Amino acid sequence: MERLINWKDLKDFGKRVLIHLNVSEDDAEHVIDNLVSSNLRGIDSHGVARLQRYVSGIETGYIIPDAQPKITKESAVLANVDGQNGLGQVAGTFGMKLAIEKTRQNGIGFVTVHNSNHFGYAGYYSLMALEHDFLGITMTNAAPLVVPTFGRNALFGTNPIAVAAPTERNKAWVMDFATSVVPRGKLEVYNRLGKNLPDGWATDETGHMTNDPGRVLKNLLDQLGGGILPLGGEGETYGGHKGYGLGVWVDIFCAVLSGSNYGPAVVAKKDGKPNFPRVGHMFLALDPEYFVGSGNFKNTMDNYIELLKNSEKAEGEKRIYVHGEKEFEKQEEREKNGIPLDAKTV
Amino acid sequence: MERLINWKDLKDFGKRVLIHLNVSEDDAEHVIDNLVSSNLRGIDSHGVARLQRYVSGIETGYIIPDAQPKITKESAVLANVDGQNGLGQVAGTFGMKLAIEKTRQNGIGFVTVHNSNHFGYAGYYSLMALEHDFLGITMTNAAPLVVPTFGRNALFGTNPIAVAAPTERNKAWVMDFATSVVPRGKLEVYNRLGKNLPDGWATDETGHMTNDPGRVLKNLLDQLGGGILPLGGEGETYGGHKGYGLGVWVDIFCAVLSGSNYGPAVVAKKDGKPNFPRVGHMFLALDPEYFVGSGNFKNTMDNYIELLKNSEKAEGEKRIYVHGEKEFEKQEEREKNGIPLDAKTV
Repeated sequence: MERLINWKDLKDFGKRVLIHLNVSEDDAEHVIDNLVSSNLRGIDSHGVARLQRYVSGIETGYIIPDAQPKITKESAVLANVDGQNGLGQVAGTFGMKLAIEKTRQNGIGFVTVHNSNHFGYAGYYSLMALEHDFLGITMTNAAPLVVPTFGRNALFGTNPIAVAAPTERNKAWVMDFATSVVPRGKLEVYNRLGKNLPDGWATDETGHMTNDPGRVLKNLLDQLGGGILPLGGEGETYGGHKGYGLGVWVDIFCAVLSGSNYGPAVVAKKDGKPNFPRVGHMFLALDPEYFVGSGNFKNTMDNYIELLKNSEKAEGEKRIYVHGEKEFEKQEEREKNGIPLDAKTV
Repeated sequence: MERLINWKDLKDFGKRVLIHLNVSEDDAEHVIDNLVSSNLRGIDSHGVARLQRYVSGIETGYIIPDAQPKITKESAVLANVDGQNGLGQVAGTFGMKLAIEKTRQNGIGFVTVHNSNHFGYAGYYSLMALEHDFLGITMTNAAPLVVPTFGRNALFGTNPIAVAAPTERNKAWVMDFATSVVPRGKLEVYNRLGKNLPDGWATDETGHMTNDPGRVLKNLLDQLGGGILPLGGEGETYGGHKGYGLGVWVDIFCAVLSGSNYGPAVVAKKDGKPNFPRVGHMFLALDPEYFVGSGNFKNTMDNYIELLKNSEKAEGEKRIYVHGEKEFEKQEEREKNGIPLDAKTV
């Protein structure tokens, strides 16, 4: 049965779990703030339900609970950070803070992180840049789930991109999504409900489209071939090669550039044994003051957002959303009424 | 009838046309090199067939043939450039050269350009970064052709993103595409051939999907509603909101940040009169030497490319392409055999 939980209680509980596992209080705060904020924003796939996997990662050994990020290369505007196989949120928060600090000094900061783990939802880090009226970009690679165009096997992750831009009158513009058609969580939902997948979401062991979510999930688990399709679907007709390009781009920025694992190597288990997945991230902050000016930028963002929202709707449609709007509304509602957690997560 | 033209002859001819219209020899070289290179790489939609539109832009007055780009704001790693409503390739080449120069000094260069015009294919500028073993990113906004998710009207352009990464053993990795499902050129091809559009490419004046390319093109021309769908297609089921996000992202980086026109304002005609479209661009160069090291980066890129190409194919498929591969092969072939031009372009 679903239960509504107060977000502060949820944070307290999760923090205690992590501290018990030898995570410092500060680091536990970074992790839990990210997970609960994901629930608040309605991204339950990246919420506290993930905590179980972090606990298991610490227990089996591929997440080192007290590892501290270390800068391995640095200039006034660039840096590469070694996450030392600790919690992804710890390395992620460190990475974006560093990018923001550089941006405060020089208008831009571009930071890569290697040897990290799952860092929660990507938008979290881009939102950090907004507090300083900066633009923020976040990317991360992830475990292989997505097939390249014309390929049979899942070779790279759902590799998300999150871009945030500050505003004044409206909520910030925050785009945050997997570069695959859908994240794995969606397949799991369809599987639980016994529903067929829409065409163009996933492939089976032949490398061609299937509507059977259970088959895709089982094949991925057993590495029998197939997986989720890149944004744009199967083949090139609907631009599947574009989504495939976006996924590889993320891998290049997060891992090839930082010296982390890329493609199919990003796995937490190898030959039956726990394995450091060595996830890679990328963080960029940018100060509009160095371009058109901060006030001017925010005002134009507001004008653009209002232009999109107020423009004519397609017949039968009531609303055009701008990116981030749904999540901010959800956050307001859930901060007031609580976060709904299913029985298993509770 | 189609004719094969030697690329050098084509360049000479185009250059003479532009010089005749008061474009300096250097600037004419930038424009023609971009157009002919597009033809060589097989992107005929952005090749010399465009020259006619540049000539008409100069003649009607929205392209100033002898305008010179001017830096309006600059730091060691950032700059904003005023294209002064000149030829897009002149401002574009200036912008990427400036980003590269900053990267030579400080590892990164991020340059925006405002008050520009159509600059040809975006990949051209990202390829410039490769000559220095840098990564290159290029974005540009464009005339409104694409509808936001649930919207009725075309509010932003096909806003392309081009990313290039250097390699050693293989051809460079070059991703270059419109953030819509397809560029307008594809609709024109289907219309000429009297073929139905695939589902999910475009919408009509109701804001919903149509298979009639002629109707979409006519509606766009007459501003009756509808247009090309963002990558991911209609609605949110296939990720159409992701393509919509990518398109707006490009507008934010190219125009909101630089102080140029964005969204539906990027038009060369207003109230029946010629209008400066004030197109905006963005150029980023990045030196991997500041991260994992240049040699290391290129070697890992090669490994990744080979992993993708050599991985198992979907049943019935013979080849997995990596981004840029098709274009490099086409270039080799066309440099040898000539560029095929249709009768109208000849």
